[in-house]
Amino acid sequence: VRLSKDKVGVIGVPSCKGQSAGGVQHGPKALRQAGIIDKLTQLGVEVYDYGDLVFEQFDDDTPILGLKNPKNIGLAAKKISDQVSRVIKDDQIALTLGGDHSLSIGTIHGHAAAEKNMCLVWVDAHADINTPLTSPSGNVHGMALSFLVKELKEYIPQIPHFEWIKPCISAKDIAYIGLRDLDPGELWIVRNMGISCFTMHEVDRYGIDMVLRMSMQAINPHGDRPIHLSFDVDSLDPRISAATGTPVPGGLSVREGIYIAEELAATGKLTAVDLVEVNPLLGTKEERDLTVYAATEIARACFGKKREGNIPPGYVLPRPD
Amino acid sequence: VRLSKDKVGVIGVPSCKGQSAGGVQHGPKALRQAGIIDKLTQLGVEVYDYGDLVFEQFDDDTPILGLKNPKNIGLAAKKISDQVSRVIKDDQIALTLGGDHSLSIGTIHGHAAAEKNMCLVWVDAHADINTPLTSPSGNVHGMALSFLVKELKEYIPQIPHFEWIKPCISAKDIAYIGLRDLDPGELWIVRNMGISCFTMHEVDRYGIDMVLRMSMQAINPHGDRPIHLSFDVDSLDPRISAATGTPVPGGLSVREGIYIAEELAATGKLTAVDLVEVNPLLGTKEERDLTVYAATEIARACFGKKREGNIPPGYVLPRPD
Amino acid sequence: VRLSKDKVGVIGVPSCKGQSAGGVQHGPKALRQAGIIDKLTQLGVEVYDYGDLVFEQFDDDTPILGLKNPKNIGLAAKKISDQVSRVIKDDQIALTLGGDHSLSIGTIHGHAAAEKNMCLVWVDAHADINTPLTSPSGNVHGMALSFLVKELKEYIPQIPHFEWIKPCISAKDIAYIGLRDLDPGELWIVRNMGISCFTMHEVDRYGIDMVLRMSMQAINPHGDRPIHLSFDVDSLDPRISAATGTPVPGGLSVREGIYIAEELAATGKLTAVDLVEVNPLLGTKEERDLTVYAATEIARACFGKKREGNIPPGYVLPRPD
Ligand SMILES: [Mn+2]
Ligand SMILES: [Mn+2]
Ligand SMILES: [Mn+2]
Ligand SMILES: [Mn+2]
Ligand SMILES: [Mn+2]
Ligand SMILES: [Mn+2]
Repeated sequence: VRLSKDKVGVIGVPSCKGQSAGGVQHGPKALRQAGIIDKLTQLGVEVYDYGDLVFEQFDDDTPILGLKNPKNIGLAAKKISDQVSRVIKDDQIALTLGGDHSLSIGTIHGHAAAEKNMCLVWVDAHADINTPLTSPSGNVHGMALSFLVKELKEYIPQIPHFEWIKPCISAKDIAYIGLRDLDPGELWIVRNMGISCFTMHEVDRYGIDMVLRMSMQAINPHGDRPIHLSFDVDSLDPRISAATGTPVPGGLSVREGIYIAEELAATGKLTAVDLVEVNPLLGTKEERDLTVYAATEIARACFGKKREGNIPPGYVLPRPD
Repeated sequence: VRLSKDKVGVIGVPSCKGQSAGGVQHGPKALRQAGIIDKLTQLGVEVYDYGDLVFEQFDDDTPILGLKNPKNIGLAAKKISDQVSRVIKDDQIALTLGGDHSLSIGTIHGHAAAEKNMCLVWVDAHADINTPLTSPSGNVHGMALSFLVKELKEYIPQIPHFEWIKPCISAKDIAYIGLRDLDPGELWIVRNMGISCFTMHEVDRYGIDMVLRMSMQAINPHGDRPIHLSFDVDSLDPRISAATGTPVPGGLSVREGIYIAEELAATGKLTAVDLVEVNPLLGTKEERDLTVYAATEIARACFGKKREGNIPPGYVLPRPD
Repeated sequence: VRLSKDKVGVIGVPSCKGQSAGGVQHGPKALRQAGIIDKLTQLGVEVYDYGDLVFEQFDDDTPILGLKNPKNIGLAAKKISDQVSRVIKDDQIALTLGGDHSLSIGTIHGHAAAEKNMCLVWVDAHADINTPLTSPSGNVHGMALSFLVKELKEYIPQIPHFEWIKPCISAKDIAYIGLRDLDPGELWIVRNMGISCFTMHEVDRYGIDMVLRMSMQAINPHGDRPIHLSFDVDSLDPRISAATGTPVPGGLSVREGIYIAEELAATGKLTAVDLVEVNPLLGTKEERDLTVYAATEIARACFGKKREGNIPPGYVLPRPD
């Protein structure tokens, strides 16, 4: 497999204030304990592990317009953005291990700062594009994209600690895959702003291969743009990834998830990957292991693991003496 | 989604004499307790709930030519037919909650009485088209269609209490989806009478989207006919709908079931829906909940729920003050 | 369904020395206890049951170049080859019940001896084509094909008791389906020798129907060659076939497995079928039953069982008197 770069920078982000279930902050630890660093190294990529980001905790963090934990999240996002930007400028692919999906405010912002021309594939059961004014819950993991999309600028109220965030991606540069639970405001945005959206209905209709081709045709027709893959494990069916905060039945199979990762890796343009919403405190031990396993396999496929196997460079079949 | 009508008439039919397992008469209650009425109302359709039909029970009901419970079933079917016909004439979509599949003798007969030009999509693991002379079991839920198909008239013996049933649908107006367990006589009928039949083999070959297109091409090429969807939950894989009397491995996924319902809803011509064979006394509590959940999701998709979400009419994205 | 022959010769092969887990030698017994003989007979084929082959056990069987149990396996393979060859020459389809996949050295060798023009469909999670020099484990079930492929002749060292094996099939006459765990040497062979290879990536991309068409186009374009199907139950997803020694997640569904068997049966050219790696000592009772069930359904589909049902010859729908 071609990789745009043969170096991966791994960033742990134990974020959890973008949602309400306890435990998702332990996602990076669970993925590391399952050996994700070694498994990537074994693929022949150089892995630079930056450990987990540490965020100052602010207890006096009153909701603004219903949006919960603005200070914690806004300041964390800045730190994440800076780190991702730095890693990508160092010519490494940024692999961010979450943590809840609010962290993608930072990763996408940082990616766009390093690569102006980037585009985004968002794989999720949810669109995560409620504005603070449409969010039913006030949880930022369901609003992450709203702060980043240029066309939404006038719909976003001022939120303290979010002022630094500059919308950095256009609706036409985003492709959703796997959605199946959208709020009315989110669907309004998808339709009116022109985001490419392949819900499970489209996956069922076209098959995952055609959905990927259509996604690339929409956002990266010449294959020359850096790609950001933001992968929420709740895109997978709950029979696979039960250890996540907001599971929705009828999701992607492991095979479809891996197929997405394999194909994006094969573009040679994958520059940032978010792997989010693994919550090791949810589900049974078996369910947690399966969720972590699936996430790890997605990561491996992003960095060159192929189901047909891999031949080391220069390999020659041995003959008897 | 376009709906032919924005009114739904819900009819509970606690039938169980068309098969031998106890419990399927509690199907309507299980679906109601799971909130099916509220869930349909929340979609913005007007729901008229007619409660459950009450059938006189006859204990002296000797089998005729092996056919079990002819009197109970024949008289119940008449009552069901009248009620469905009335609901459809009142410009409502008839949603019938079963109960075993013998009830569809009544629903299809009643639908055809109200809408001469109706066509039928029968989603099931079974063809349910044995005649009384070919049925291995004598259970009417496996013979329901045989009494209704015009081409079978000369093959059907006289059964007391069934004399009122007039064959009302032609073989060419029926499409089967999901079959995987047919008796020899059933396959003979399917082939010789010319019923469109998409077994799981064809679902595997063409994919569910193409199967639906081919079904519509066969029975409703101009998209102008009222559609009757008779959905047996045993069409779904037993890993989903274990709480049913005659499960058969290798069935439809929830995604495929919902896709069928979404697409038929989108035709704007769905006029009657049967949701049958939920048996809440079978399986574990978890299996029963999953079966009921799947059936409820199928119903929601029939009445406009889409996986991409729904925008209320007139919705406008709010802006900050 | 057309069958090339209406006679099936069943050969039990309780081999287990080609791998390391105990129990796979009980595979034939488990399949027989599940009624596989009766189920095939009920399909209307003449079943000749040759019972289980009995192999002399040699305890002094030192590994050669790491290859474990050369004497036991080499001598067993000769006996298997002779028996399969005899059965096929008697105009019966050879159905071999395993036992581990090392037995296919014998079945394919014997098939090729009886039918010079045969071709091979190998359905497996693994390629089983390591040479003794590339095998990481020394287990022959992962090397079976390497001894048989003509193009590999110069890469195979001399192994005592294997000298009689003549490479009998060309790389271009082999199609793999379902692979997802290949060693580097295996992938090197697949690519450099030109074996048609449809891994789970290709199954996800093209769908199982197109994969079968492409397989036949590659190895049997005129549909005139005898076909050998070597079916390892670990090709199926471990949620189905957990009772096997080397399960790999992300496998074929039961539907896809049955589809392969139905389509190959429909060619009318299936001449030998291996059903291997059922290990009834692995997994829970439920998992074992499901594995055996799936294997039995695959076998039935190979010998004419169709999901649309089957009509006995001369069947006529009965009419009332
Ligand atoms: Mn998300
Ligand atoms: Mn999500
Ligand atoms: Mn059924
Ligand atoms: Mn039915
Ligand atoms: Mn094998
Ligand atoms: Mn295998």
